[in-house]
Amino acid sequence: MERIILDCDPGHDDAVAIMLAANSPQLELLAVTTVAGNQTLENTRRNACNVLQWLGRDVPVYAGCDRPLVRAQQIAADIHGKTGLDGPVFPPRTKFPEAEHAVPFIIRTLMASDGDITMVTTGPMTNLAMALRLEPRIAEKIRRIVLMGGSYQNGNVTPAAEFNIYADAEAAHICFTAGRPITMVGLDVTRKVLCYSAVVDRMERIGTRASRLFVELMRFFCQTQKEVYGMEGGPLHDPLTIASLIDPTLLTTKPMNVRVELRSSDSYGRTNCDYYGYLGLPVTADVAVDVNVPRFWDIVEECLRRYEPEVTP
Amino acid sequence: MERIILDCDPGHDDAVAIMLAANSPQLELLAVTTVAGNQTLENTRRNACNVLQWLGRDVPVYAGCDRPLVRAQQIAADIHGKTGLDGPVFPPRTKFPEAEHAVPFIIRTLMASDGDITMVTTGPMTNLAMALRLEPRIAEKIRRIVLMGGSYQNGNVTPAAEFNIYADAEAAHICFTAGRPITMVGLDVTRKVLCYSAVVDRMERIGTRASRLFVELMRFFCQTQKEVYGMEGGPLHDPLTIASLIDPTLLTTKPMNVRVELRSSDSYGRTNCDYYGYLGLPVTADVAVDVNVPRFWDIVEECLRRYEPEVTP
Amino acid sequence: MERIILDCDPGHDDAVAIMLAANSPQLELLAVTTVAGNQTLENTRRNACNVLQWLGRDVPVYAGCDRPLVRAQQIAADIHGKTGLDGPVFPPRTKFPEAEHAVPFIIRTLMASDGDITMVTTGPMTNLAMALRLEPRIAEKIRRIVLMGGSYQNGNVTPAAEFNIYADAEAAHICFTAGRPITMVGLDVTRKVLCYSAVVDRMERIGTRASRLFVELMRFFCQTQKEVYGMEGGPLHDPLTIASLIDPTLLTTKPMNVRVELRSSDSYGRTNCDYYGYLGLPVTADVAVDVNVPRFWDIVEECLRRYEPEVTP
Amino acid sequence: MERIILDCDPGHDDAVAIMLAANSPQLELLAVTTVAGNQTLENTRRNACNVLQWLGRDVPVYAGCDRPLVRAQQIAADIHGKTGLDGPVFPPRTKFPEAEHAVPFIIRTLMASDGDITMVTTGPMTNLAMALRLEPRIAEKIRRIVLMGGSYQNGNVTPAAEFNIYADAEAAHICFTAGRPITMVGLDVTRKVLCYSAVVDRMERIGTRASRLFVELMRFFCQTQKEVYGMEGGPLHDPLTIASLIDPTLLTTKPMNVRVELRSSDSYGRTNCDYYGYLGLPVTADVAVDVNVPRFWDIVEECLRRYEPEVTP
Repeated sequence: MERIILDCDPGHDDAVAIMLAANSPQLELLAVTTVAGNQTLENTRRNACNVLQWLGRDVPVYAGCDRPLVRAQQIAADIHGKTGLDGPVFPPRTKFPEAEHAVPFIIRTLMASDGDITMVTTGPMTNLAMALRLEPRIAEKIRRIVLMGGSYQNGNVTPAAEFNIYADAEAAHICFTAGRPITMVGLDVTRKVLCYSAVVDRMERIGTRASRLFVELMRFFCQTQKEVYGMEGGPLHDPLTIASLIDPTLLTTKPMNVRVELRSSDSYGRTNCDYYGYLGLPVTADVAVDVNVPRFWDIVEECLRRYEPEVTP
Repeated sequence: MERIILDCDPGHDDAVAIMLAANSPQLELLAVTTVAGNQTLENTRRNACNVLQWLGRDVPVYAGCDRPLVRAQQIAADIHGKTGLDGPVFPPRTKFPEAEHAVPFIIRTLMASDGDITMVTTGPMTNLAMALRLEPRIAEKIRRIVLMGGSYQNGNVTPAAEFNIYADAEAAHICFTAGRPITMVGLDVTRKVLCYSAVVDRMERIGTRASRLFVELMRFFCQTQKEVYGMEGGPLHDPLTIASLIDPTLLTTKPMNVRVELRSSDSYGRTNCDYYGYLGLPVTADVAVDVNVPRFWDIVEECLRRYEPEVTP
Repeated sequence: MERIILDCDPGHDDAVAIMLAANSPQLELLAVTTVAGNQTLENTRRNACNVLQWLGRDVPVYAGCDRPLVRAQQIAADIHGKTGLDGPVFPPRTKFPEAEHAVPFIIRTLMASDGDITMVTTGPMTNLAMALRLEPRIAEKIRRIVLMGGSYQNGNVTPAAEFNIYADAEAAHICFTAGRPITMVGLDVTRKVLCYSAVVDRMERIGTRASRLFVELMRFFCQTQKEVYGMEGGPLHDPLTIASLIDPTLLTTKPMNVRVELRSSDSYGRTNCDYYGYLGLPVTADVAVDVNVPRFWDIVEECLRRYEPEVTP
Repeated sequence: MERIILDCDPGHDDAVAIMLAANSPQLELLAVTTVAGNQTLENTRRNACNVLQWLGRDVPVYAGCDRPLVRAQQIAADIHGKTGLDGPVFPPRTKFPEAEHAVPFIIRTLMASDGDITMVTTGPMTNLAMALRLEPRIAEKIRRIVLMGGSYQNGNVTPAAEFNIYADAEAAHICFTAGRPITMVGLDVTRKVLCYSAVVDRMERIGTRASRLFVELMRFFCQTQKEVYGMEGGPLHDPLTIASLIDPTLLTTKPMNVRVELRSSDSYGRTNCDYYGYLGLPVTADVAVDVNVPRFWDIVEECLRRYEPEVTP
């Protein structure tokens, strides 16, 4: 069983990542840490609590950084709605974040570990970067980093950059150069995982409380994707990270040298991935280049089924 | 009939572009101008002469700039061999470049025109950029610019940049901001046009002098592509520009804002193409997003057939 | 009495800053925090302890960050010697740093304050920047920031940049944009404060334990300045910050817009100070433009005299 | 006698440079070439003709580039007035620019020379850069380059950059890397040459036609300097280049590595001059670090006296 901390900014696709992480026999979810990204920190920490409460999973939530390390803040309100998790109506909240800040929590937990914890990030990498700079000795305690972010083709917030990296490219640079195994799950594969109506219908038939949350989230998400980008199915970026831990054959990866662009204004936040090895630089990351899409939906379905059936009121 | 000047750095794929340009009823090839790029200026001007002499086409050649505007020089010797056009054995040379430099030639010819000349570039855009700066009034005399270069996905010389733009990004910036209609034929489509053995065999059966040159060039080109990149078929980048003038339905294009990255070291020369319109900036170029590959090979075959049959000695 | 935290990387001139801060009736020195800069964190924390022990001052020392936020580390070993404080032979050490990391100490202390604490930095600004990002609410608790660093003329580690800013320009950017009053004491004035032999002789005549430390430090410092830069007197950069708190008339300052260069490689870390107001941007800092040099030496002498007389063994 | 071409953008201080260049026994002024800079090309070429006509000197004028190589255009209208040479009322014009463009003129003249021509630039370096790229063989024909531009301290159009370099930093980069001896006369010395009222009064007493032009120009120039910058005397930047050819002892120079900043937005156009040799890079330029100001005014006076006395109508 792989022990993980999920650092995220829910966000619809982060919420699905939480669903997968919180109820898979292959994974032990130690905590959910949150960061400003898709939405403000206030929203992302509340959203994480709401999702875990809905799912009935007693996983602690730690709120972390409310802004990027160096650059000015960037919010993606258009896709995720006003709360960052528009769609479902969450019941009155009984679950709240822990008092401790996510950064000292990450440091403390990693330092106390046997080096067996995997860090999964599905938002800007600010929390992990801050932890690495505040306590550099955690680097050798990290088993590996798996992130949703980046692209070796084109971006989704500028022509050069994907949102999570663009939102805090300096943090990403710190994580990519931390010297630990790192798997980049970028737009190159996540764009292939489109949540069409047929998928939502399929999950709706499962009839667990978790599947209902999935359905309510996805109906909203697909709607805004259509309105903003004119796309039929919304890309489910974040859960690919967790799904790849559940089934290591899910993704095809290729080792590459990856450098995060910090110097340019136009290209800020681009992950320059040396797919073809032009530069002759050392390999620094495993970059996802393909995904078994049907297998991914099977993983989601299997996980949603494992949740408790919905009690009809 | 569209009047064109072909500015190139032959180069195997440039040579095929010359074949198409020099013998198509839809086009009048006013001149071939050459620039340093795939190879030194000395090599590219000789290669252009050799190709035209072999084809028996009396089109003047003007040699232009021997280095980029601002950046240090970059040569692609690995793919095109020592001469820049390795493969065929050219007969003793009887054709030579004109005495005039390409830049004043371009200025003079455009200024004397009725604004009906299309500039096609298949190498670094140094010559056209120099002409635009030396005589800014030529801008309104250019009918349109069609270039092979750039990529909205990843590059072929760095993770960010395609060779022709990387080799002189400042020149590309000048051309992209000249205010004229511009069509960018980048790696996003040229990578789809792979010259496999079956294609070479097909062209070999044509039996013209031109088809023999095509075959000898492609046998070498495909061999080095395989050795350097491990790819089976070599991408035939440059001729797509000319083929798209012969058949305007060949390419699917999409209007985008395109900005050439000049500021960064890692991302230098990237064409940041706003495919999805994230930035809300004005459209500045038509960018090729798809190509009808079978139609392209038909165009090549038709053109090679139009050349004189090879006389068996 | 102004309450201060002195964040430094001793370093010879930092040591003199500590002398001034630890024994001036106008100042209450709450703590010395240290950072990697002139030397490694290990060296700077030991040096701070050694100086305070020598001076007989019971001020706590907190060690902070051992590397810059984003850029690769930079050490100035040539000027400050192998230990970072070569020259004096320190007695066996009885004073040690606190267990707490400087960043949470700074956060905790500022949050518990009435907003009356001045942050003085004489090294890379990493600790304060980390604190500002980990707990953004401290910003409004900082009375003001006074830093040694930057230059509106030329640099002292590259043609563009001064060492403290160059060593962590991202940290400096965070502090300069924190929205608090900030006074930049840069090379433009510190280069005027040269410690010639006559000054060392003058201080030697004082005969306190502190003056002996000053003399032993300066003899070494002036020697390396001469060897490395060929200058007769070493510039005493850091103590100007503390001296300006002791006597607010010491420096002449001018309000300017200041932007720290993060994007360029050659100009990285330059403090672009809009001395003449060319850019029409808002004023963001008070920048020292002149210093009353004789008054500075008087302040140093007065302070050294206040220390206990040296007991002849 | 040193043969020179003066490339300029008059401009009040350029006009004084022309006065010195056109009537000094140590110099043979082959031509004045003009460029867009302080003002549009249309204005600078007219101004050059007006000055030479007023002085009665039959030196040909060639108009060159009307915009920078790469960056967008920048004009300094506030200092030099609407025409770029406000102040004097010029008589009806009988002198006109040559038909030939400055760039081919420079190429032709240098190629026909024995390598004995000094290029003096007192505006953006666009013309010389274009010539170097259009005909690289001229590099070895240039005796040396003497330019007004740059600063190793702070700028005069941004905190980082001086106007002539900022207006076309890519052109400056080309000239600084051309491999020829180059003397940079930057703000570091030209700011010391302030034209106070006393100087204007002194020159007024000379009573030549040239001195009257000097006086009328300077009265206007000093007035706008006062209005725009609040300075009493206007800095007479450009003539220092010519004066340093007339008297080689005028300037103190120091050999340095100089790199022109092209990558950054904030620091664009800064001449990073390694005054102290921090970088260990090869020396690339002689940079003026001091000027004998009284000697400069003597040179100006001597030159103005050599002109024909003014005929009272």
